[in-house]
Amino acid sequence: MNRELLDTEHVLHLKRLGINTSQEAVIYMREDCAICRSEGFAAHARVKVELNGRSIIATINVVTSAFLSPGEAGLSEAAFHLLRGSEGERITIHHPSPLNSLSAVRSKVYGNQLNQTQFSAIAKDIAKGRYSDIHLSAFLTGCAGENLNRAEIVALTRSMIDVGDRIDWGRSPIVDKHCVGGLPGNRTTPIIVAIAAACGLTMPKTSSRAITSPAGTADAMETLAPVELSIDAMRKVVENEGGCVVWGGGVNLSPIDDILIRIERVLDLDSEGQLVASVLSKKAAAGSTHLVLDLPVGPSAKVRSSKAARSLSDHLIAVAECLGIKATAMLTDGLQPVGAGIGPALEAQDVLSVLKNEQDAPVDLHKRAVTLAGEILELASKVPSGQGVQMAHSAIVDGGAWNKFQAICDAQGGMKTPPHASQTFPIEASRSGRISAFDNRLLSRIAKLSGAPGAPAAGLKLHKKIGDSVSKGEPLYTIHAETPGEINYALEFVRSSSDVIVIEEIR
Amino acid sequence: MNRELLDTEHVLHLKRLGINTSQEAVIYMREDCAICRSEGFAAHARVKVELNGRSIIATINVVTSAFLSPGEAGLSEAAFHLLRGSEGERITIHHPSPLNSLSAVRSKVYGNQLNQTQFSAIAKDIAKGRYSDIHLSAFLTGCAGENLNRAEIVALTRSMIDVGDRIDWGRSPIVDKHCVGGLPGNRTTPIIVAIAAACGLTMPKTSSRAITSPAGTADAMETLAPVELSIDAMRKVVENEGGCVVWGGGVNLSPIDDILIRIERVLDLDSEGQLVASVLSKKAAAGSTHLVLDLPVGPSAKVRSSKAARSLSDHLIAVAECLGIKATAMLTDGLQPVGAGIGPALEAQDVLSVLKNEQDAPVDLHKRAVTLAGEILELASKVPSGQGVQMAHSAIVDGGAWNKFQAICDAQGGMKTPPHASQTFPIEASRSGRISAFDNRLLSRIAKLSGAPGAPAAGLKLHKKIGDSVSKGEPLYTIHAETPGEINYALEFVRSSSDVIVIEEIR
Repeated sequence: MNRELLDTEHVLHLKRLGINTSQEAVIYMREDCAICRSEGFAAHARVKVELNGRSIIATINVVTSAFLSPGEAGLSEAAFHLLRGSEGERITIHHPSPLNSLSAVRSKVYGNQLNQTQFSAIAKDIAKGRYSDIHLSAFLTGCAGENLNRAEIVALTRSMIDVGDRIDWGRSPIVDKHCVGGLPGNRTTPIIVAIAAACGLTMPKTSSRAITSPAGTADAMETLAPVELSIDAMRKVVENEGGCVVWGGGVNLSPIDDILIRIERVLDLDSEGQLVASVLSKKAAAGSTHLVLDLPVGPSAKVRSSKAARSLSDHLIAVAECLGIKATAMLTDGLQPVGAGIGPALEAQDVLSVLKNEQDAPVDLHKRAVTLAGEILELASKVPSGQGVQMAHSAIVDGGAWNKFQAICDAQGGMKTPPHASQTFPIEASRSGRISAFDNRLLSRIAKLSGAPGAPAAGLKLHKKIGDSVSKGEPLYTIHAETPGEINYALEFVRSSSDVIVIEEIR
Repeated sequence: MNRELLDTEHVLHLKRLGINTSQEAVIYMREDCAICRSEGFAAHARVKVELNGRSIIATINVVTSAFLSPGEAGLSEAAFHLLRGSEGERITIHHPSPLNSLSAVRSKVYGNQLNQTQFSAIAKDIAKGRYSDIHLSAFLTGCAGENLNRAEIVALTRSMIDVGDRIDWGRSPIVDKHCVGGLPGNRTTPIIVAIAAACGLTMPKTSSRAITSPAGTADAMETLAPVELSIDAMRKVVENEGGCVVWGGGVNLSPIDDILIRIERVLDLDSEGQLVASVLSKKAAAGSTHLVLDLPVGPSAKVRSSKAARSLSDHLIAVAECLGIKATAMLTDGLQPVGAGIGPALEAQDVLSVLKNEQDAPVDLHKRAVTLAGEILELASKVPSGQGVQMAHSAIVDGGAWNKFQAICDAQGGMKTPPHASQTFPIEASRSGRISAFDNRLLSRIAKLSGAPGAPAAGLKLHKKIGDSVSKGEPLYTIHAETPGEINYALEFVRSSSDVIVIEEIR
């Protein structure tokens, strides 16, 4: 056999087809191409694609029509970027080496405990794009629920840190906070960063985009300033201003987290271990030393019971300690949304209103932000125990936090005004009475159907909170959207749902 | 809002792009199309596609280049067939209804027991193509290992039967056999069908293609006769000849089994419950009343211990009883491959050799086939207990089985001669001694790398069995392939593997 000859036959010319498959690497090959014929590749086989010494694994889609010429192969946009290809370049195609880390995934699925070596092998293969969506889904499912023990969570977290960059700030403390999502509108982060930085702490915050919610901190912050900064750009902002709020996926910290989150979003699975690893891998890679965790608890929040919250916070604090991070957790009220807005721009407006200390600023958002910021100030020993909240509150009242926030936005690339929706539709109370409960999940669903977070101005604005009295016909909330179609989807859902907001008769 | 206007805007013209994505339904939509713009669909979103009252759910791939014109949408071949579309037809695109059965999948992943209603909802959604590969992978992973209890396996099996056709033969007994795979070359089925039919039993056999092995019965049989028959065609063969060997996926029996098997193949997961449901849903849908199960047990077979085999056979027999099938299981020797050939055509050659009662026919294959056929004859009360093997053996010796087999092949569309490989390469013993063990998994891997089952002539042919003595340099087995590239892949693997065949020194 002439190995060299065989390799020559494996060459195809790269064509950019402009097909966006999300993150999945796909290679489009003609059914009649020499490689498919001679090597017996079939649809859905995985192959190794090489270009200038770089290689990726891609799933074959076999093309039976003429939009590829003989000798050409196409790549999905994700594969094109992963391989850093240019149109016309010569790629070579091979059978991929067996994906040995999959045996660890299977072992996990069968209920066995994995060690550091196994998690590291899995994380490395995922980072290199070697897992198809089917493999990723099995890995996440195997780790879902409470399937990972403490040691496994630590190992998974370490493996996620190791495949990305890690920032060394050359100083301590580096403070951070994290909210374990599920509570719509709980957008305290930009406020807390402004307070902490105004009080002289260093708080380089990397945040995520929405996973299953209508807005993540990065989505909301993006309506106020650019959030996709490189590590170098982020470092500059932090060195000058003491804080930042950037998208974690824009810097290469725990890069596989976003790959896993994309699959989690499709599955809508909760996974305690994955959640801990996702949160802490980002924090450790970002160089955080002190971390305050916000765990909203409520029947329709992400964490539904105090028991679940304690289990989660125990894991978070213990795993953080293994990574050299001092962490503390606050169980907070998760009964109703925080602030008035739900959706990127609407939440950003609440943030501005609190930071500017405006008279009609949402009291609950103000209070939560100040409480968490106070905890951070104490954890980092900026103030003696018991005095954190007062110091945080003062930073709002004296305008220090607002000035700092504007400076941070400018440093991130320029402050922007959040967009307003072109379409709005008020939802009125069907009866008179007093508000007794919110279904946070249904509210999130409505905001998502209205276009959030993809459409930044979309979402909804609440006019009432628990305990408020309403008259029949009075608006409870207003749906915001960027297209009539999206208003319609949201309305269809509102009309088919009961008890989004519960109104009790006043006796 | 004008709902009708909105619906009109949802119309696109169908273009056949000729992209084979395997079974996944994908819709290709222009980034700038009115629907993507106004509705905010993004890459990897799932949409409902309607055509003439039929609908499917498809995953969006967003196209940023010009191979789709404005107003056009493309479908993957799988989606095109599922929707029964024609080029230029008007399709409408909507947000899909929420996939409620996914909450049952999540519940299973979290370790809860599912009931009949939940499994039925899942099976129905899978049959309608509503699950993406990510969802299917999570479902299979959630059911993997020993995660399903007896009641769940029965419920899953029933749900799989219910979404397909079911054959009523109008008579009893309808005999059947099934081998729980893992043992290369164990191709007894065509022989057993020939014996049973020759002895006057009715044995309408539906078989699968390879899942993770180098050949399934359908793959091997296909080198001897057409196996993709409709139910009507199959019925005709059985009415005339008393037996058949057809591909189960060609008739619409338990149609989601093949969808699940495609994902299982990518994951290479073992799942006791899924295995039982897969086997028995096909048997029940095929109208079987009496079933003999062959469970090869060995350290490198699919079932590795007698304990695992008993657990599996207990499940199979009990679930079969719930479905009205009388089943019995035989634990057989799984230490080494059966017969000489591994791979579709090479196994078919062994089958022919046994049926023709040739002098050099593999003794082990003959013995297994006759033993299992004897069990079937007794289970169906064709002979008194203890006399089945003798009757089966006689059917081989007197030529009855061989004549019957030829008649069945002719009835299925014409008997063929199995192809021979253009490339062969002998693997020689590295030392002298006596063969003491085979690694069935590695042998399967070599046969698969050589191209089996996709390339029907590919695989390998064994020249030695356990207990045989060999001299250094004597061929142990010969690799068969259809291309030099595939011989190369197999050889690379052989050279990097140790102990595929263990040779012990003779003292």
